[in-house]
Amino acid sequence: MAKDKKLVEAITSMEEDFTQWYTDVVKKAELMDYSSVKGCMIFKPNGYAIWENIQKQMDARFKETGVENVYMPMFIPESLLQKEKDHVEGFAPEVAWVTQGGLETLQERLCVRPTSETLFCDLYANIVQSYRDLPKLYNQWCSVVRWEKTTRPFLRSSEFLWQEGHTAHATAEEARERTIQMLNVYADFCEEVLAIPMVKGRKTDKEKFAGAEETYTIEALMHDGKALQSGTSHNFGDGFAKAFGIQYTDKENKLQYVHQTSWGVSTRLIGALIMVHGDDSGLVLPPKVAPTQVMVIPIQQQKEGVLERANELKERLMKDFRTKLDDTEKSPGWKFAEQEMRGIPVRIELGPKDIEANQCVIVRRDTREKLSVSLDEVEAKLAETLERMQADMLSRAKKFLADHISDAVTYEQFRDAVANKPGFIRAMWCGNRECEEKIKEDTTATSRCMPFEQEQISDTCVCCGKPAQKLVYWGKAY
Amino acid sequence: MAKDKKLVEAITSMEEDFTQWYTDVVKKAELMDYSSVKGCMIFKPNGYAIWENIQKQMDARFKETGVENVYMPMFIPESLLQKEKDHVEGFAPEVAWVTQGGLETLQERLCVRPTSETLFCDLYANIVQSYRDLPKLYNQWCSVVRWEKTTRPFLRSSEFLWQEGHTAHATAEEARERTIQMLNVYADFCEEVLAIPMVKGRKTDKEKFAGAEETYTIEALMHDGKALQSGTSHNFGDGFAKAFGIQYTDKENKLQYVHQTSWGVSTRLIGALIMVHGDDSGLVLPPKVAPTQVMVIPIQQQKEGVLERANELKERLMKDFRTKLDDTEKSPGWKFAEQEMRGIPVRIELGPKDIEANQCVIVRRDTREKLSVSLDEVEAKLAETLERMQADMLSRAKKFLADHISDAVTYEQFRDAVANKPGFIRAMWCGNRECEEKIKEDTTATSRCMPFEQEQISDTCVCCGKPAQKLVYWGKAY
Repeated sequence: MAKDKKLVEAITSMEEDFTQWYTDVVKKAELMDYSSVKGCMIFKPNGYAIWENIQKQMDARFKETGVENVYMPMFIPESLLQKEKDHVEGFAPEVAWVTQGGLETLQERLCVRPTSETLFCDLYANIVQSYRDLPKLYNQWCSVVRWEKTTRPFLRSSEFLWQEGHTAHATAEEARERTIQMLNVYADFCEEVLAIPMVKGRKTDKEKFAGAEETYTIEALMHDGKALQSGTSHNFGDGFAKAFGIQYTDKENKLQYVHQTSWGVSTRLIGALIMVHGDDSGLVLPPKVAPTQVMVIPIQQQKEGVLERANELKERLMKDFRTKLDDTEKSPGWKFAEQEMRGIPVRIELGPKDIEANQCVIVRRDTREKLSVSLDEVEAKLAETLERMQADMLSRAKKFLADHISDAVTYEQFRDAVANKPGFIRAMWCGNRECEEKIKEDTTATSRCMPFEQEQISDTCVCCGKPAQKLVYWGKAY
Repeated sequence: MAKDKKLVEAITSMEEDFTQWYTDVVKKAELMDYSSVKGCMIFKPNGYAIWENIQKQMDARFKETGVENVYMPMFIPESLLQKEKDHVEGFAPEVAWVTQGGLETLQERLCVRPTSETLFCDLYANIVQSYRDLPKLYNQWCSVVRWEKTTRPFLRSSEFLWQEGHTAHATAEEARERTIQMLNVYADFCEEVLAIPMVKGRKTDKEKFAGAEETYTIEALMHDGKALQSGTSHNFGDGFAKAFGIQYTDKENKLQYVHQTSWGVSTRLIGALIMVHGDDSGLVLPPKVAPTQVMVIPIQQQKEGVLERANELKERLMKDFRTKLDDTEKSPGWKFAEQEMRGIPVRIELGPKDIEANQCVIVRRDTREKLSVSLDEVEAKLAETLERMQADMLSRAKKFLADHISDAVTYEQFRDAVANKPGFIRAMWCGNRECEEKIKEDTTATSRCMPFEQEQISDTCVCCGKPAQKLVYWGKAY
């Protein structure tokens, strides 16, 4: 019982120490573990199963927009990485280099991909000839490596899992549209499946991707009021096409450069799930993404017939719901605590008295609401409960977000907000990098994005007082 | 039209040059491409989609046996790789080494995983304490790297995609059972989904995995009579457990070592699909694994209503079948050739006369059999056709296998068979490595496996004449 005990010992409370709470949840819900490999993590079954559910549902949404999956090599020759100047400057300092293959020293170093723009460009240069070959809408699910000094489960590690989409289009307009389209795919997915509302907008030049013309982002707000960049979509214009010579002949038989995009989300999304929905009992998973949706827990299982009926119920529910039965020898109390720690959306309690009354008790993970339902209508009630829970989780997250946005017109208001009001701060900006840098230095807050829905909340930059150009969401960020 | 033309130009015929035929199919069916990265390949959409279908169906079979997916780091510190002596000797000569991370030289080299036994052992040593923690049944889908000098699409490349299962058990017996269970999962999958019959058996000590007690294999026969090792399952006994200190306390509170297995299949299976089922018009995919099962091809599509009706038919069929419509401006002839090259199991031809007669024509890829069916019953007929095609492909492959097994009692018969009878040769073996080596040197044939179904076809070793121990399948292999 030593293991169970550890699991149900109280974890650190969120209010006391959010960082420690996060680490405790990751560890005790058995999502991830540290490895002997510096900076690299192990995705354990509970954590990886969440990623599988994200992959499956997001991949279907990609494919609906015409995207096809491919797989590119994990190595990039140094000369290829160097073809686009801004790109190599952005990534070279943080890549891992392979210098030996088998028993030989390589003539050219290979980096382990930190992202694969250069490989896709190299491919497109070879396979795109005519306007008939366009658009190319490729994506891959893979791991990438960026050498990090500090690590944090799901948020920052030297190797992480993600998807990277890379598209090539005939026109600048089409590339711009695809950039926004994929950002919307991400935002809709996060809202509809993960129950996480997103602030959508464009990154400032300072924060954009190395080599991009424009970077768009979805930003989520964690329970501690810090922002988490949760997905990005980049419009490259024809910059990479010129560096890599990706040209096609148009209908008039003239040579043109393609216009490109790339876009990605990673296992960071699991970090967002934890920090948006979790509570002091552990993880709370939205039903649509939960690997196990229903845990059947027998009460007084030593009594005749209880385990049998619990198993029957599980088998029945498995047809419509991702269901498990906890028939271990632990006490019901332990089992409840485990199910709660793991964020399983509902548990069903079934004991001798329930069986006698032809009923069971459905308990929601998020609200602990209990519902006695007849065994004759358990499927319908369960479907209803899960649907309501999914909707309620989104509503609560939306309310939390709305409650944690404050406006600042003066720099004093801004500094006060950063210090005292956890969340996003909306403030006007003159467009100069110097102000972004000063704000970061003074407050540690950074520009998260220029939201799509622009508003003029004052006429002057919150930092320098010069004429305002853009409304910006600012915040401390992971 | 330049591209279409290249596609439907005759590919090299199989009988003329099988190797060139294979390369042509891979290239023209757009399955894979060479990359700028030495030894590494690009999985293009048509090739990767086959892998996705293999993954999805095989993963479901794994999970039915209790297996859970995880993801482990792609790097292995040199000291960890060296913990099991046979294992490091087997793999060290063919791994890629990372020696620099970011701007720093690493204190310890990291190899890019060639396989992950060492990482799983390291994890199990940390998380297994009691008999209650067993068994551990973990698997991961990932890419691995083995530095190869020569490459061949799907068959041999420096980086390839695979799955690797790693299990830990309380007893030797349970580990042995799991080893065989997973081999059977592989063989059943290959037969039922890929329509490829397998010879199942055990590898000789010479051919077994570095660090394993026993290695089991499934071997398929390609159209040119060469064998392809298509999946392996290893029983490690407690060898790795002792090297890594993986111990648990049993019910009597005594410390015991765990017993382990590992098992894997890779994208080689796609090579097998090509070389077992392909013909001189290109790829032939079994319906169960084909990314597109049905291609609707309109005839005289410029005529009013044809494209509209073809599109309606596609939409209708998409509910039950993976269906596409080819509404490009190419001629029907080009479209047929493309569909055949890509191995799409059936095409449906629909022209003005068909529409008038309320019918369409179903054409099977493997036999070219044509079937006119009423549009009212096209779903039923299509389902029947695909089912029959799947079954027929397996029957033909089984017959081919049976027709290409010959027995040899004397060494002369053996040498004659290797030279003149493409396929497997069944012959008795004394159990000595020297005979295996002599046979390989004399004939290039290797021992493929000692089949589960043993028979005594003679009393003496086919090579040395000493008393026979085992019936062995021999053959030239990829």
